[in-house]
Amino acid sequence: MIGAVACGPKAGCRLKRLLPDARVTMIDRDDLISYGGCGIPYYVSGDVPDLKGLRNTSFHMTRDPAFFKGAKGIDVLTRTEATAIDRERKNVRTKNLDTGLEDELPYDKLVLATGSRPHVPPIPGIDLPGVYPVGNLHHAEAIKRMVAQGQVGTAAVIGAGATGLEMAEALADLWGIETHVFEMAEHVLPGVLDADVARMVEEHLAKNEINLHFGLQIERLEGDAEGVKTIVADRLTLEVDLVIVATGVRPNGELAAAAGLLTDGQGAIVVDEHLRTSDPDIYAGGDCVVNRCLVTGGTIYAPSGSLANRHGRVIGTNLAGGEATFPGVTGSFVVKLFGLGVAKVGLGLERAQEAGLEAVGVLVVQADKAHFYPDFELMYLKLVVQPDTRRVLGLMGVCEHGDALAGRISAVAALMPHRPTIADVSNLEVPYAPPFASAMDILNATANTAENLLDGRLRALEPDEFAKLLAERDKGEAIFVDVRAMDNAAPYLEALAPHWVHLPQERLDDLMAQVPRGKKLVLICNSGVRSYEAMRQLEAEGITNTVNLAGGVAAVKKWGEPILPSPDKE
Amino acid sequence: MIGAVACGPKAGCRLKRLLPDARVTMIDRDDLISYGGCGIPYYVSGDVPDLKGLRNTSFHMTRDPAFFKGAKGIDVLTRTEATAIDRERKNVRTKNLDTGLEDELPYDKLVLATGSRPHVPPIPGIDLPGVYPVGNLHHAEAIKRMVAQGQVGTAAVIGAGATGLEMAEALADLWGIETHVFEMAEHVLPGVLDADVARMVEEHLAKNEINLHFGLQIERLEGDAEGVKTIVADRLTLEVDLVIVATGVRPNGELAAAAGLLTDGQGAIVVDEHLRTSDPDIYAGGDCVVNRCLVTGGTIYAPSGSLANRHGRVIGTNLAGGEATFPGVTGSFVVKLFGLGVAKVGLGLERAQEAGLEAVGVLVVQADKAHFYPDFELMYLKLVVQPDTRRVLGLMGVCEHGDALAGRISAVAALMPHRPTIADVSNLEVPYAPPFASAMDILNATANTAENLLDGRLRALEPDEFAKLLAERDKGEAIFVDVRAMDNAAPYLEALAPHWVHLPQERLDDLMAQVPRGKKLVLICNSGVRSYEAMRQLEAEGITNTVNLAGGVAAVKKWGEPILPSPDKE
Repeated sequence: MIGAVACGPKAGCRLKRLLPDARVTMIDRDDLISYGGCGIPYYVSGDVPDLKGLRNTSFHMTRDPAFFKGAKGIDVLTRTEATAIDRERKNVRTKNLDTGLEDELPYDKLVLATGSRPHVPPIPGIDLPGVYPVGNLHHAEAIKRMVAQGQVGTAAVIGAGATGLEMAEALADLWGIETHVFEMAEHVLPGVLDADVARMVEEHLAKNEINLHFGLQIERLEGDAEGVKTIVADRLTLEVDLVIVATGVRPNGELAAAAGLLTDGQGAIVVDEHLRTSDPDIYAGGDCVVNRCLVTGGTIYAPSGSLANRHGRVIGTNLAGGEATFPGVTGSFVVKLFGLGVAKVGLGLERAQEAGLEAVGVLVVQADKAHFYPDFELMYLKLVVQPDTRRVLGLMGVCEHGDALAGRISAVAALMPHRPTIADVSNLEVPYAPPFASAMDILNATANTAENLLDGRLRALEPDEFAKLLAERDKGEAIFVDVRAMDNAAPYLEALAPHWVHLPQERLDDLMAQVPRGKKLVLICNSGVRSYEAMRQLEAEGITNTVNLAGGVAAVKKWGEPILPSPDKE
Repeated sequence: MIGAVACGPKAGCRLKRLLPDARVTMIDRDDLISYGGCGIPYYVSGDVPDLKGLRNTSFHMTRDPAFFKGAKGIDVLTRTEATAIDRERKNVRTKNLDTGLEDELPYDKLVLATGSRPHVPPIPGIDLPGVYPVGNLHHAEAIKRMVAQGQVGTAAVIGAGATGLEMAEALADLWGIETHVFEMAEHVLPGVLDADVARMVEEHLAKNEINLHFGLQIERLEGDAEGVKTIVADRLTLEVDLVIVATGVRPNGELAAAAGLLTDGQGAIVVDEHLRTSDPDIYAGGDCVVNRCLVTGGTIYAPSGSLANRHGRVIGTNLAGGEATFPGVTGSFVVKLFGLGVAKVGLGLERAQEAGLEAVGVLVVQADKAHFYPDFELMYLKLVVQPDTRRVLGLMGVCEHGDALAGRISAVAALMPHRPTIADVSNLEVPYAPPFASAMDILNATANTAENLLDGRLRALEPDEFAKLLAERDKGEAIFVDVRAMDNAAPYLEALAPHWVHLPQERLDDLMAQVPRGKKLVLICNSGVRSYEAMRQLEAEGITNTVNLAGGVAAVKKWGEPILPSPDKE
């Protein structure tokens, strides 16, 4: 096994359990091996008090070379780099990074678990002291030392992916560091979330005092031998004590490519369903390989400690002569940010459109439990579907009850390989009791809403279009029809009349004569359910120039978009 | 619509949204309609402070006849019984339960949403004051009044199904009532859980001061006009102030049967995939119908408010000329009991064997999150699989993090219609981040363990067999081999030597000479993982008379089974 962090150890241990007589050697460049790299933000925050926490088994043994030798029967060579693979002679050329000594390691079967490395953008000053990627435990230790010693008043995180945002929370939340996140794209979690759902996350981060900067080009970092001092972007200059570089990772595929193995355009190793490379005696898994995408049928680079472990087990089985397969990935994702769960599976609308797929999204807001159960939280889910086939391409959302959100995402992830349609999700049997779900669960409701949209019964207005229409209300093109009870509607009426009118849904049939004609009607309730009902009632009367605010006032509020001119009235 | 609680209103409202001109009338025997009956225990406990909570929409409107008229355009006749259906003339004979007046209601399409009624066993005294089923809001009010007025010091609940246990919690937890649960079967949640997982729930209930009585035949209730005083069972007599009867429900299929519609052996209405009865103009859904079981291919009676809602939507679509289908149910279940989540999908081992299916179960214990993340809880999952096909038949478990458990169950419920094999669950992509899952999630781990069992690499010992062997240790048939670290093993060694020996897994290869030979070796660690590893090591040395304690010491403890003679040493 070349690489001893996740896939390599898993493959080796599985092989030893199947074939106890197999001789397994793992080599790694690092002296620290077999760790939970995804836990680094929790070590920096202090939730994991000791670095050993990320290296220990659940029964508190540290996974060092002695552990692998004693408990697993595996030899480990640390601080040892694989410099070349001789596939003809079936050996690996190695170099000890401490002594410089070179050696050769023969193999019958070889596993490439070379992982990934942080992508460090070529910004002048990026190698200054105090600038760290989040690549391994040494980086983690250095960052933690700086913050624990009180050396950091202000920090910048470059990159608003999951790692960057987890690190931002770690710095700001426990350590009280003024934290700025720089992202070249226009929203957080680009490539994962669509802009509308990302905005709910941004609002949550801003409430928790994370400073977000989008669309900025970082020109240089300035500082001296003592450390980084300034981050200079095209429209912002900021004094900082620490810079975290979290701009993604790149697969370590060079060793494989040099040995003539097939790699893809970005250097990731190409493997078949059995996780074999183009050389049948060489397997590869984890962050160094490219995966088959079960949604598009194309390929996807999906670095993840979980994937690496599942890859490792398949490889271990196959090394022992088995026929295990890894069909591909569905692109599931979850992160917790200041208590907010954020998750997705499959493709967002932006990703689907990039992939050339026609797609629409529907946003649904509903309690995660029965609405009468005391401690529910609203869940915000966006389902992405293909109109012609009615196929579900993806699901994303946010909820303060993160486990409840992750559970809905898991359910759709489980279905994804079977190319589900909206009917499959409409009938999906989320287990029901009031403390866990609604009688009509939000997952069913998203599919039902998608069906209504595709059947032409529902015309949805997204929060951003709503905000634009509202800002331009004086043009008189749209009337905002509030179908809620008067106590909800009153402050809006007071501030926004005559553009905002009140026609409660349960009296709408009687009030039909009062419905404004000849203008676009924006139907509004708290969640989008009653306003959909109103849309159907108006339609029956021939009033069709209507749109329904998707997710209602709840979604707009979650966005942080003010509706009232002075929001404190709400 | 005959019946106005869940399926009826859903079907009617959906129809009105699709065909606004349709004339919809709902009739119901009760004066209270469209309520969340599953919420009754939470009303009794006080979590839902007001009965209206169970009758209100999420936007706080009470779903009474005026609401259905105004907001939905549906006419409701309450206190009105349907006494007969004339399918020839297409009308329903009705009777007003207050005035006694009879009438006829013509229909083009009819929906039977007649629900279920509590099964009240024919015990002498069952009709005494102070004896209540949990059938409707009137029962809920009466029970709540008695407990709130301090009239109840001791209560008996007959039936340890979900409703019985939720009611027991409601009485004991908030109101401090001494609560006894009587169950004819030998464990709680019979028909839902297997005995081994049920025992974990029983231990949890006992810790929360619920008194459980199994296998008792209740002979009679005694009392007078003031109320019930005594519950007399074959081996127990108990003074009580309140008796809750929660011995299941029976489908209200009599009206359908009298009209010549097809019903099954227990009186439930038979419907096709479109939820049509044997009369194409009559649909039926909710608690009054029998469903197709997606696991066995047979039928299943599955009363549930959630199912009733999903049925209702399908019926509403089809009433409007659509072609919606309801393929069947997977048997998902969840309940929260004193904070413990208890859930399952598909068939337990007992049910599978009753259905004539060959099946085995595997128990896996693992943290619900990364084991290094601070607030994980252990999750206990049992996967039930068919050995020859490797098909997954069911999954059940318990966890203090109920949403996390329900999420895993949802994922398998989503897969169930696709007849998953263990390989599908092994590769299932539970979204991963340390606050939500392990890198190798417990769901994947259960499938992997099942594979090891079916491949003959793992021989599991269930907690009950372990307890029996331990109790009979003086017979000398088995040696208990503790492969944990010494600090875990020490108290066991002290109390149970020479039957209990210590051979730590990570040194087992070196200690092979000390392994006792010629006796059955019971391999023990905290969760069953290291002891499985030890089994593989021993096997490599030709020592095959070994069994692995499934779920390890954690499972035995969750069972409440003492291992040490004086458990306070643990």
